[in-house]
Amino acid sequence: MSASYDPQNIFAKILRGEAPCVRVAEDEVSLAFMDIMPRTEGHTLVIPKTPARNLLDIPADDLARFMPSVQKIARAVKAGMAAEGLVVQQFNELGGGQVVFHLHFHILPRWPGVAIKPPGGPVVPPDRLEPYAARIRAALAAG
Amino acid sequence: MSASYDPQNIFAKILRGEAPCVRVAEDEVSLAFMDIMPRTEGHTLVIPKTPARNLLDIPADDLARFMPSVQKIARAVKAGMAAEGLVVQQFNELGGGQVVFHLHFHILPRWPGVAIKPPGGPVVPPDRLEPYAARIRAALAAG
Repeated sequence: MSASYDPQNIFAKILRGEAPCVRVAEDEVSLAFMDIMPRTEGHTLVIPKTPARNLLDIPADDLARFMPSVQKIARAVKAGMAAEGLVVQQFNELGGGQVVFHLHFHILPRWPGVAIKPPGGPVVPPDRLEPYAARIRAALAAG
Repeated sequence: MSASYDPQNIFAKILRGEAPCVRVAEDEVSLAFMDIMPRTEGHTLVIPKTPARNLLDIPADDLARFMPSVQKIARAVKAGMAAEGLVVQQFNELGGGQVVFHLHFHILPRWPGVAIKPPGGPVVPPDRLEPYAARIRAALAAG
């Protein structure tokens, strides 16, 4: 891991099972779970298991192995959430809007006339996120 | 390529040399060039040579081979533009804000107090984009 990676960041804790998440999927290289401050319904995060701060410091080989999982989750978010499109966002460094310093891709489903809310919104409790996770998991299972 | 990929899209023309661009870098799998409607100074696009509409339809192996180039360009944009951070964005389908239907990642440098402009802004002529491309190329050359 890079010298400046903090293994106590919240996503590292989620990866180690020390903090909860509303899980969507896990594979050898990634974990996907619901953003607790969703900017849209179905707002999903995909993170690598590699301890990387962001896109700038992840080893290129790990990035290459990770991205097909981002793609797989993106397809499932679109299908499971019956979205017309998706916005994918990824923030780097404090000055780039990054809040948690473990690489994460935001998958934001879009529908006509529904705006993306600003970041930093209210925390949504797990029981209200779980139905979206279930829809995305069902889409993954359907292939 | 996927059945719905249109080989006459503007980025396909740029890849074939049939349309101009302010080039930043090219390798076996990617091309990077300046966005002609920049939302920040130094707004750079990175596209795969694979004919894919977006993140949803690119073959997973091609995505894996392509992403290290996105990373390389992201690092160079940050260094060359002396940015404090970067926003990476990628839009999928018309309903997701996609305008050109060839997969592209937006690399947006960020500085304190400088907002990202809304999309669809005025077209900036090549001679005003070239100085940014030169700074990013210099950062790439410096490693």
